[in-house]
Amino acid sequence: MEELRTFVIYDITDDRVRAKIADACLDFGLLRVQYSAFAGSLNRNKREELFLRLCDTLGEEVGKILIQPVCHKDVQDMLIHEIAPNGGSEL
Amino acid sequence: MEELRTFVIYDITDDRVRAKIADACLDFGLLRVQYSAFAGSLNRNKREELFLRLCDTLGEEVGKILIQPVCHKDVQDMLIHEIAPNGGSEL
Repeated sequence: MEELRTFVIYDITDDRVRAKIADACLDFGLLRVQYSAFAGSLNRNKREELFLRLCDTLGEEVGKILIQPVCHKDVQDMLIHEIAPNGGSEL
Repeated sequence: MEELRTFVIYDITDDRVRAKIADACLDFGLLRVQYSAFAGSLNRNKREELFLRLCDTLGEEVGKILIQPVCHKDVQDMLIHEIAPNGGSEL
């Protein structure tokens, strides 16, 4: 099954829940792109599996979870700019 | 020129710069999806124009800016879950 670059973006108030959401993203091999956003390669099954886990982790807490796959063509159109603390680029 | 759902995700330490980045996203008609992430419909020219403005705003400050367009097919595969403070959904 085809793997696509997948973004996971969330907005969760509760510190404990937010940390568990980040742990789940790491478990699925995603890399942190921002404090509450991860990205990595997942197929459809893995995306749905991760989504169910994140929804389950959120439970009844207030929050938002968004999982967005991006096809290879769109990845080529990504624009990215980084200034790392040491002056180099980490991406 | 075709407009595509576009995500802008950034990670910027300086409060003043981060606020200016958010203002630029709002100026381009994007909606906030998370503390440091916006989304909305932009064509290629607008994406590049916004990218230049954000890079210019960041200047020499440490930070990361990512602009990702998403085709209509991929938007259909987006997974989203929200529990709003009032118990309803804002999306």
